[in-house]
Amino acid sequence: MQSVKSPVETTLEEIHEQFRANAAGRLADYIPELAKADPSHFGIALVTVDGQIYEVGDTAQSFTIQSISKPFVYGLALEDNSRADVLAKVGVEPSGEAFNSISLDPRSGRPMNPMINAGAIATTGLIQGGSAENRFERILSMFETYAGRELSVDMDIYRSESATGHRNRAIGHMLRNFEILGSDPNPVLELYFRQCSISVNCRDLGVMAATLANMGRNPVTGVQAIRGEYVESVLSVMGSCGMYDYAGEWIYRVGMPAKSGVSGGILAVLPGQLGIGVYSPLLDDHGNSVRGIEVCNKLSLHFNLHIFNAVQSVHSVIRLKYDSSQVASNRKRTRRGAANLKEKANQIVVYELQGELVFSTAEVVVRDLVSAANTVRYVIIDLKRVLTMDQSACLLFSKTIEVLSHAGAAVVFTHAAAHKNLRRIVKAWNKNGNTGERWVQFEDNNEALEFCEDQLLASFETPAEAVPFEELEVFEGMTHAEIELIRGVAKNCDYMPGDIIVRMGDAADSLFFLSAGSISVQIPLQNGNYKRIVSFDAGSVFGEVAFVDGSTRSAMVYADTPAHCFELARDDFDRLGENHPALKIKLLQNLLLVFSSNLRKANREIATLGQ
Amino acid sequence: MQSVKSPVETTLEEIHEQFRANAAGRLADYIPELAKADPSHFGIALVTVDGQIYEVGDTAQSFTIQSISKPFVYGLALEDNSRADVLAKVGVEPSGEAFNSISLDPRSGRPMNPMINAGAIATTGLIQGGSAENRFERILSMFETYAGRELSVDMDIYRSESATGHRNRAIGHMLRNFEILGSDPNPVLELYFRQCSISVNCRDLGVMAATLANMGRNPVTGVQAIRGEYVESVLSVMGSCGMYDYAGEWIYRVGMPAKSGVSGGILAVLPGQLGIGVYSPLLDDHGNSVRGIEVCNKLSLHFNLHIFNAVQSVHSVIRLKYDSSQVASNRKRTRRGAANLKEKANQIVVYELQGELVFSTAEVVVRDLVSAANTVRYVIIDLKRVLTMDQSACLLFSKTIEVLSHAGAAVVFTHAAAHKNLRRIVKAWNKNGNTGERWVQFEDNNEALEFCEDQLLASFETPAEAVPFEELEVFEGMTHAEIELIRGVAKNCDYMPGDIIVRMGDAADSLFFLSAGSISVQIPLQNGNYKRIVSFDAGSVFGEVAFVDGSTRSAMVYADTPAHCFELARDDFDRLGENHPALKIKLLQNLLLVFSSNLRKANREIATLGQ
Repeated sequence: MQSVKSPVETTLEEIHEQFRANAAGRLADYIPELAKADPSHFGIALVTVDGQIYEVGDTAQSFTIQSISKPFVYGLALEDNSRADVLAKVGVEPSGEAFNSISLDPRSGRPMNPMINAGAIATTGLIQGGSAENRFERILSMFETYAGRELSVDMDIYRSESATGHRNRAIGHMLRNFEILGSDPNPVLELYFRQCSISVNCRDLGVMAATLANMGRNPVTGVQAIRGEYVESVLSVMGSCGMYDYAGEWIYRVGMPAKSGVSGGILAVLPGQLGIGVYSPLLDDHGNSVRGIEVCNKLSLHFNLHIFNAVQSVHSVIRLKYDSSQVASNRKRTRRGAANLKEKANQIVVYELQGELVFSTAEVVVRDLVSAANTVRYVIIDLKRVLTMDQSACLLFSKTIEVLSHAGAAVVFTHAAAHKNLRRIVKAWNKNGNTGERWVQFEDNNEALEFCEDQLLASFETPAEAVPFEELEVFEGMTHAEIELIRGVAKNCDYMPGDIIVRMGDAADSLFFLSAGSISVQIPLQNGNYKRIVSFDAGSVFGEVAFVDGSTRSAMVYADTPAHCFELARDDFDRLGENHPALKIKLLQNLLLVFSSNLRKANREIATLGQ
Repeated sequence: MQSVKSPVETTLEEIHEQFRANAAGRLADYIPELAKADPSHFGIALVTVDGQIYEVGDTAQSFTIQSISKPFVYGLALEDNSRADVLAKVGVEPSGEAFNSISLDPRSGRPMNPMINAGAIATTGLIQGGSAENRFERILSMFETYAGRELSVDMDIYRSESATGHRNRAIGHMLRNFEILGSDPNPVLELYFRQCSISVNCRDLGVMAATLANMGRNPVTGVQAIRGEYVESVLSVMGSCGMYDYAGEWIYRVGMPAKSGVSGGILAVLPGQLGIGVYSPLLDDHGNSVRGIEVCNKLSLHFNLHIFNAVQSVHSVIRLKYDSSQVASNRKRTRRGAANLKEKANQIVVYELQGELVFSTAEVVVRDLVSAANTVRYVIIDLKRVLTMDQSACLLFSKTIEVLSHAGAAVVFTHAAAHKNLRRIVKAWNKNGNTGERWVQFEDNNEALEFCEDQLLASFETPAEAVPFEELEVFEGMTHAEIELIRGVAKNCDYMPGDIIVRMGDAADSLFFLSAGSISVQIPLQNGNYKRIVSFDAGSVFGEVAFVDGSTRSAMVYADTPAHCFELARDDFDRLGENHPALKIKLLQNLLLVFSSNLRKANREIATLGQ
């Protein structure tokens, strides 16, 4: 077998090759340790929100995280403090100035934003945890969760930063002067120098970026690194201030929230989709990695990753929409029941939804529902393929249930188990004396369809009927004498609810006629439960497929209510042919009619489901 | 019938009511006309990318567009000039300063960005079109396309702006000094004053915003207002500089690219989803509408519209994936053909895709394809429900075809007609002596499945077979004498390709046995063409469903190749029962076997398609 390489990998290799030769820029040299980096090092990592890692070049090479630590520590500060407290100490406006500009509000001393050094030091001052050691442990542990592995501090760099960080010390004292830092700035500065000296590699940057893209959950380890509600704030400060005085140009050209550091890393996030990490220590005049900017620019162009380049996405939310004339429940009704339902089949409508339900996708569904409110009695909303539903979509649905209810239409959700926020809202609404909790509890569409059909049938006041033997559909066209012949050999069986009528795996050596009650065909699930796949009301024949092709029973049949069946054994069936061929011919022809009707229903469903 | 109100509308009404009482802020008064606005006016419009307009309050009230004109004229400048020329005259960095700050680069004189007055005047200077009048007509006409209606200039405001615009005149001369404006600044300034004095209303702002959200296509009129490729640049400058020195705070809190104007309008865009327009003329110190900011903040929170709050969206791209053991083509094969195919059914795999194919969604598909490259021979990619496919996705697919081809697997697209960029790429690849253009031409999955099955069968070297009468499946278990009895009454029919065998609407009064050749069942489409729904190879029975339930023929049957059929008329079929009941019973039982096999296939398909 050939090894097959993904074209994504190939493309990254091509891009790496394309920019490898570019040796423009120079190493950061404000501390000697940074100037020791190998200028030829160059790595690219692209990590998807489901944890696929593509990497090329020196992606395992360690370097210190430097300013790329800033947005992550800002996220921790938001977790540790009220938002008002954070905003009181650090603003969120771009300064339009260089990374090491002081940019404090002249009156309040508040740094313009957390991406410049002043704002980042103020942010580090907001991290909770008692002792400096403990606070650092919390910071380090956060980075480890983002990266999905153990990290450590590069002590040489740390000592060098600490020994030479005069400008940052000046900033620290200015912040103390304005009471942005509430106590001695030196421990906060040491914390800040250590945070900047944490060693990471290019692959880590990619995973950290993908964690932000994935609403704070590391897509490789599955561990939450920051509560989802704060991710948009972290990305916002990256988006407006992450690339120093190149931020506007960056959003214009690359179009992803990003952060760079003087050691040569760049981390970029395409929310909901992927994260990118690039490492190349040669910097431009803004302090950004030269190759890093080039690679991100190229990737954005080549893969069309600009966040504002969004195509319309609302329409695919409705995967399928059909009424119960196209797909009915798998309950075979009595003849009268079937006729009554047929008349009102378009009053039950199923919406199969898919993807994410956010405001704009939910709005498409709600608009459709509202427009149908006066013609439809039951709406089944299938959430099986809905990946997420935000609070906004829940509220819209909840209000729509209310509006439809006033118009006389009921909404039934299926597969809602995973959507706790929806269940909570609908439950609260139900409590106000509206409908039972039942409305959100169906686990499949067939059950929901059957429930809605039952409700519709109730309006006809058709009582449960028993069908006399001679009126069973398979005896259509037979003489009284012929029917009596069959009755003579058919076994009479009475069942109580829960009784087994047919056992899976048995030989299919008889045919069943249901004359009273309801029964259902069920298959076992892996979890030990059973799933009802078809149900029958009085008047039906069942077990005919396996009986005809002589296979074994592929499902269990249970009585759902007290039930009465007639059972015709294969021997008797065969013997009928020998002694009463005309009768046998009628019986076979009636069976063919049952098959052709079932086949027509199945073909209607295929046409609907495959549309 | 009750009128049913959408919960979206209700929510907008509630938000309108909530902020109506807030009379904070003051009217712009730098020209007397603006100070005449009614401070109580307050409108909200929300417009979706499919053109649904929700509006509440004073959405028809006219006001001048003012600074909201800036991003739109910037878009026109990008259409009129090379990007390099535009960037040479106006930057894209936020200035961090107020709207009327001059913010020119001290050396080049280049304004920081097109959203401040200096940058906007420079931008207006880039509009092409000869005479000032003609250039203004182009600007006005562009705004009319965005708004979807005729617009005009408020001459009082224009005259007032022109008479009092000393600061802007100063800027104009500074720009002339730096050669950012290449000639007399006065005509450009007049153009700029007129552009700012165009009358719009709140509803217009919503539609204009939705047009940007919809990649430049007005979702109400369907007319393109700006080429899609420039939309991301327009949104980028709005995102980084659209709200003056409140831009960072705005992105942090509201999270949508936006633009405000001193007359009290705010326009916000959620790309791919919706546009918002708010009008309320009371301004805060930044020059932004007080109620406008509040409403956008509330809408963003309530409907969860922050652009960085993106849930993972890549997984729903594969709607269904199945192999040909689950859903096979609708060609009923010869007995040997069917057996051969069964053995290799898992070598044909169908991917039904949906939604937008961009890098991150295409990557999910490509990853799956690459991992299956060594086990699958034919991949069918169904694009029917794919709304858009960007160049990046096309390139990925194109490279994947190549990679799979080297591994011995072929890729077949269905419903690719709408995806011209894909067709172009695959065509180019085919030209390099690879495969025929055929690969992208299937219009439905059934045909593609059949094509792949044919290719697989070719590897078995099974020649087309004719099935002798006595070996037809429906005669299984019959004696030679019985078969001869049927042969005696069956009509022999020969057909040439294209001959009609069964006509739609005819009475279904005979049953057909195909002993040689291939035939297909076709239904007419609304466009006059026919669609093949099932095909049969030699050995099959056909026309049995309508024959059994006595309905009329619901489709046409054509010969696809020279074909030989035996036709058994209903009269003869019935007579067999009278004279040779044992024979009739065997025939009916064999027909039941055909039905049960077809029903089992249909149920497998339902289980797959409904999964």
